[in-house]
Amino acid sequence: MSAVEPFDAVDLIRVKRGGGALSTEQIDWLVDAYTRGYVEDAQMSAMTMAIFLNGMERSEIRDLTLAMIASGSTMSFDSLGKPTVDKHSTGGVGDKITLPLAPLVSSFGVAVPQLSGRGLGHTGGTLDKLESIPGWQASISNERLFEILRDSGAVVCAAGSGLAPADAKLYALRDTTGTVEAIPLIASSIMSKKIAEGTAALVLDVKFGSGAFIQDLEQSRLLARTMVDLGRDAGVATTALVTDMSEPLGHTIGNALEVREAVEVLEGGGPADVRSLTVALAREMLALAGQPDADVEAALDDGRALDSWRRMITAQGGDPSAPLPVARETHVVTASSSGYLVRQDALPFGVAAWRLGAGRARKQDPVMASAGLELHAKPGDRVVEGQPLFTLHTDEPSRFARALEAVEGSWEIGSAAPAPRTLVVDRLS
Amino acid sequence: MSAVEPFDAVDLIRVKRGGGALSTEQIDWLVDAYTRGYVEDAQMSAMTMAIFLNGMERSEIRDLTLAMIASGSTMSFDSLGKPTVDKHSTGGVGDKITLPLAPLVSSFGVAVPQLSGRGLGHTGGTLDKLESIPGWQASISNERLFEILRDSGAVVCAAGSGLAPADAKLYALRDTTGTVEAIPLIASSIMSKKIAEGTAALVLDVKFGSGAFIQDLEQSRLLARTMVDLGRDAGVATTALVTDMSEPLGHTIGNALEVREAVEVLEGGGPADVRSLTVALAREMLALAGQPDADVEAALDDGRALDSWRRMITAQGGDPSAPLPVARETHVVTASSSGYLVRQDALPFGVAAWRLGAGRARKQDPVMASAGLELHAKPGDRVVEGQPLFTLHTDEPSRFARALEAVEGSWEIGSAAPAPRTLVVDRLS
Repeated sequence: MSAVEPFDAVDLIRVKRGGGALSTEQIDWLVDAYTRGYVEDAQMSAMTMAIFLNGMERSEIRDLTLAMIASGSTMSFDSLGKPTVDKHSTGGVGDKITLPLAPLVSSFGVAVPQLSGRGLGHTGGTLDKLESIPGWQASISNERLFEILRDSGAVVCAAGSGLAPADAKLYALRDTTGTVEAIPLIASSIMSKKIAEGTAALVLDVKFGSGAFIQDLEQSRLLARTMVDLGRDAGVATTALVTDMSEPLGHTIGNALEVREAVEVLEGGGPADVRSLTVALAREMLALAGQPDADVEAALDDGRALDSWRRMITAQGGDPSAPLPVARETHVVTASSSGYLVRQDALPFGVAAWRLGAGRARKQDPVMASAGLELHAKPGDRVVEGQPLFTLHTDEPSRFARALEAVEGSWEIGSAAPAPRTLVVDRLS
Repeated sequence: MSAVEPFDAVDLIRVKRGGGALSTEQIDWLVDAYTRGYVEDAQMSAMTMAIFLNGMERSEIRDLTLAMIASGSTMSFDSLGKPTVDKHSTGGVGDKITLPLAPLVSSFGVAVPQLSGRGLGHTGGTLDKLESIPGWQASISNERLFEILRDSGAVVCAAGSGLAPADAKLYALRDTTGTVEAIPLIASSIMSKKIAEGTAALVLDVKFGSGAFIQDLEQSRLLARTMVDLGRDAGVATTALVTDMSEPLGHTIGNALEVREAVEVLEGGGPADVRSLTVALAREMLALAGQPDADVEAALDDGRALDSWRRMITAQGGDPSAPLPVARETHVVTASSSGYLVRQDALPFGVAAWRLGAGRARKQDPVMASAGLELHAKPGDRVVEGQPLFTLHTDEPSRFARALEAVEGSWEIGSAAPAPRTLVVDRLS
């Protein structure tokens, strides 16, 4: 030991094990000592399991988040001279909302610095989707980031590894030790990166249902509440929508397929659920940016949002007019009877898209731009026997069998129309 | 991965995290995979914290214990042709009971294979105590162990490292990750070693109070219940006494000082509490060995137990007539007023003996045979101002100051006699 340590990891674990709260000094030390390797993985995993089971107080979650931020570099958009607002979704199946949302909001003169990640498992990643556009680059320098934000207003790019490195280390540990789902740690992990990015305001899309990271509605509400409180405690204006992810968003799942659908929304069309969630989130973002009465729908309908999209894609080397990759093989599944589509379960459809090549199992795996699913009917739609229900897309036809296995039994045709879905079930501020 | 693993550590952690029970196959795999390093320390520490907070079912504790035993070698005393019975104490301050107990029980023709450990912290170790006898050796071969058990009947020796090695690995992890106090894991750790040793019957002395490993009476009862059930489930006849360790046992704390007191008990004298607990535990052990009506007190009073002690010490190279080490320096603390001694708190007196040199802070440290404390008065005794209350012994007078600091405020003289202590508060079978 080169210096005298002010605390002992076992003492701190015992506090949390007993349901007590850690002080600011204890949390600062814990995160710092873990980052430099003095507190060992085995000690931190016992601590995270104690946190999973005994929770954390609001002040502890704030302290933990600030300590995570302090472990790395931070950014500031103060020099831009215009309001900034960011959106974060907890992830879902067919969740391409960032694609129309960022240019839509930036068309109102607001900067949208959308530092995003890649997909893992059945949840797609925004960067993977945009990379299906010929020429588009996820990695840009900080100088270029500021330049684009100043000029066109919207940037979707890869987050630098310098933001909250302690969180990256802790997340990797949680992933192998069964504590990923701890609400205080999820909240701290998401918010530490968003706050370190330097946005002044943040809108959260917290999803529940089978395709969501957290499936239970009440747990999702709790996560939303925790993050909104945490944003406030850390000085970032934050609101959250709690939204339904029990069925896929829109008619497409997969990278290029979702880009195509996002462009439809930016052209004033697109599936009703994708448009309505885009509009709802844009209103929240613009309200936080000081424009509570902005006519969001008009910007979709009159081409302003689409212009903004073209500038955003072009600024990162992409060609918004280039044809998108198309799968070499397709396989159509048809309705075995007539009636109403009453169920279309998000998780299995997400897994099917993943198995077709749209997602990755390990961080280093590539994704297939063209792979995924097109949904020709959504719950509530009338279907007739023999009509196409959905189409599978992939470049490798050997993948069809396992994708079909994934979706087997995950949709249902009934005689009566199901109750319409409420997409946004709660709003927290 | 060289072979296909039947389970995934994260899945098993999630079961326990959610309060579920692991199957026999899952526990067998977990212990085996942890022993060979496939399951990592960080995963096992998350699992042990989940066990700490969510507990284990009786069948899981049995499975865990059997898996620990299966990780190493086992012994069997079947070939001895006489009953064997063992005793285990959870440890305390001045707990020299094994010293008179093993020869006392063996004087009735019963084999007592007492595989013991060394002390750590304020709790003394039986081997450390016996090593203060000139010539006595803790390490003996297995052949010699059987020979002595056959001839003289009682052996106190070091447990081989081949017994339950998975438990040793897990204990070291628990020690640095704040899960030492989990009842199912304590029970499994103690019992796996005792069952692997091959004893047919076992009596447990489960202590509570400030000088005990577990201070709370109800938790100690729960530990006793858990171990008695576990013994039965594993085919070892087991009973437990729950005994008070809120004040030191007897009039001495420290290695040679405790040997001296043990011999006094074997000569028919000694402090009342040491004699009565020795008698109570001997009765339990002899009952399990088929002699429920043995006249234990007579064997202490007529020299049979003392003869057995001499044989036991001689068999391991010790000279039972040799003078014991005596400290070079002593320091006497006297009563500051007259009245009754109403309190003498076990833990601080144990810490004082440790600081005088009787105990060790790290496994590899030596202990001082002569160091410790003599208590001239016990709670309930009348004392007069100026009389010696206790004497500190050590070879290094620089140790007095910190030892005195440890006991400061931990005894009290009052005007009325305290209620007499009940030493054995419960018996479980």
